Amino acid sequence: MLAPEGAACAGAFTRSVVRAACVDLCDERLRDGGGQARAVLINSGQANACTGDRGLIDSLRATQALADRLGLNGEAVLICSTGVIGVPIPMEVLLGGLDPLVEALNAEGGAAAAKAILTTDLVEKEIAFEAELDGRSVRIGGMAKGSGMIHPDMATMLGTISCDAAVPPLKWKAMVQRAVERSFNAITVDGDTSTNDTVLAFAAGDPLDSVHHAALEQGLTEAMQHLAKAIARDGEGATCLIEVQVEGALDEPSAQRVARTIVGSSLVKTAVHGRDPNWGRIVAAAGRSGVPFDPEQVALWIGPHQLMQSGQPLSFDPEAASRVLRSETVPIRIQLGDGPGNGLAWGCDLSDQYVRINADYTT
Amino acid sequence: MLAPEGAACAGAFTRSVVRAACVDLCDERLRDGGGQARAVLINSGQANACTGDRGLIDSLRATQALADRLGLNGEAVLICSTGVIGVPIPMEVLLGGLDPLVEALNAEGGAAAAKAILTTDLVEKEIAFEAELDGRSVRIGGMAKGSGMIHPDMATMLGTISCDAAVPPLKWKAMVQRAVERSFNAITVDGDTSTNDTVLAFAAGDPLDSVHHAALEQGLTEAMQHLAKAIARDGEGATCLIEVQVEGALDEPSAQRVARTIVGSSLVKTAVHGRDPNWGRIVAAAGRSGVPFDPEQVALWIGPHQLMQSGQPLSFDPEAASRVLRSETVPIRIQLGDGPGNGLAWGCDLSDQYVRINADYTT
Repeated sequence: MLAPEGAACAGAFTRSVVRAACVDLCDERLRDGGGQARAVLINSGQANACTGDRGLIDSLRATQALADRLGLNGEAVLICSTGVIGVPIPMEVLLGGLDPLVEALNAEGGAAAAKAILTTDLVEKEIAFEAELDGRSVRIGGMAKGSGMIHPDMATMLGTISCDAAVPPLKWKAMVQRAVERSFNAITVDGDTSTNDTVLAFAAGDPLDSVHHAALEQGLTEAMQHLAKAIARDGEGATCLIEVQVEGALDEPSAQRVARTIVGSSLVKTAVHGRDPNWGRIVAAAGRSGVPFDPEQVALWIGPHQLMQSGQPLSFDPEAASRVLRSETVPIRIQLGDGPGNGLAWGCDLSDQYVRINADYTT
Repeated sequence: MLAPEGAACAGAFTRSVVRAACVDLCDERLRDGGGQARAVLINSGQANACTGDRGLIDSLRATQALADRLGLNGEAVLICSTGVIGVPIPMEVLLGGLDPLVEALNAEGGAAAAKAILTTDLVEKEIAFEAELDGRSVRIGGMAKGSGMIHPDMATMLGTISCDAAVPPLKWKAMVQRAVERSFNAITVDGDTSTNDTVLAFAAGDPLDSVHHAALEQGLTEAMQHLAKAIARDGEGATCLIEVQVEGALDEPSAQRVARTIVGSSLVKTAVHGRDPNWGRIVAAAGRSGVPFDPEQVALWIGPHQLMQSGQPLSFDPEAASRVLRSETVPIRIQLGDGPGNGLAWGCDLSDQYVRINADYTT
């Protein structure tokens, strides 16, 4: 990916203390460069995490080689890696691929890139938005990958976003952080945060009047939510997307934490997989989230069917509720009280297939 | 279970904010009773959680009915429930069973009780220790149940312990809490903390000289660890026990947190199930545990095979490492640095069978 000169770039990275060499490199270059960057190189197959000293050396070599070909400063090039941990990048293969890659650079290359970065993903994850802002058309585009080791503690495996309007780097960074919190940080597939989680978001072009920044942030959030939901739906072995909406919490972070705990619960995920409206597991997961609430105020819905009110179970039609669990998107809604905090989180069901994929990954 | 007059009883309960009615009742009675109790009634099949007002009424009725038959004060009787959330106890069945139960009370009834409390468990979990302390024989006995919704945030579903030496209630409580921390709170099957987690530990008999308390606590800890490991090994769908040992952390709680994060990682659990020495997942799980450490100091072993040193991967024989993963108990050891903190945690592999059991639980 090549961005115009002067592009603002905001990064969000895994909070794991075990980070891949490429994550260290991106983080450092964005800090030193004042939130600007020009290009991103992505390799799929090797995570370049836990590869020892060689990890950083390979990342430096790869970005310098690309910078040379693009006539850029080495520091303006970022690199993301995804794949098996502990396996070094086959550098001769990567370096040999750079010339054809640079030759093929064009404005329509997004789809090919979205496909090239996949690992255990089944489908490409792309999004493009266009809106009239400030008397002109402003576009946001993005792509992402991720299917397992998905419990972003900032972002998912890899996501890149571009926007063709300029926003001052610090303002762009704040926008990206808020949008990431409500998208990539609100999904989970298996509770395992990756060593490589990286989102890089570029903004470049004519400056956008700051009165339109809120609208741009809304678009940015929706673009990231689209990609995040696509990752959750494509979770390893998943047969549906689960969307958990939490209302009435003390604040938004509390609501999000409850939502993510529910959507990450193995017992909720297997119940959904079995199309079993076992609502007790949903309430139990909320109860262990670490967020305080009064169980006597809880109300719960699966789709349109209400299963609890004021902490008391209601009688409901299990057949009808089970039909909702057969939807492509399973909506679960829980009200904790009358506070102002709402939150959303997305995940997927847990299937036998998830176990098979991950029992046999490196062997 | 019937304890002698004057028995000290210490309880440890789920930290979930959604607690079963029986947990509320036990907690309150032990607090009000100054850490003393005489009897425990256990029902299996219904958790009596999220059953509305009826939950507490049923718990009160059941304990009072047993107290009447035993000639005890109602407040001296505790109750534990395990089974499906949201389903009330069929009280006529329970009350009808009390007379034969009281009639059958005897000192050898432990095995029948350990069997009666099972739900999805495959095997009974019992332990008995005997040691010479204070010039006489002191005995500790215990039983437990639990197989799914196991991520005790205090204890597992249900465990009862008895000791035939008297210890002052406050001292006994402190001992039990420390032992629970190193046993039931160090296991996980699926990351889902239950609404009913309860451990009740009784001590009664001739007073034990306080110079022997440390030895008693050691025995208590080992008895609880035996039961906790039995629960992890009998985790739903499990084919082996995983034991994670963490060394060199800043302190014991940090080491335990890392150990429990590793043993609870779906990706580690599926890798073990696939007998795949995918060590990168172990280090990635440690990295996301929230405990700070220097990745450059990490060393890692699977059984006797060292896979990392100073944060760098070592070459190892994957066939030999895979053979270790076929053991009945899979030992994983990770050294984070040179701190004094060591910790242990136990869990099990994640199999297709876990998904099948939990996709079809209530239907």
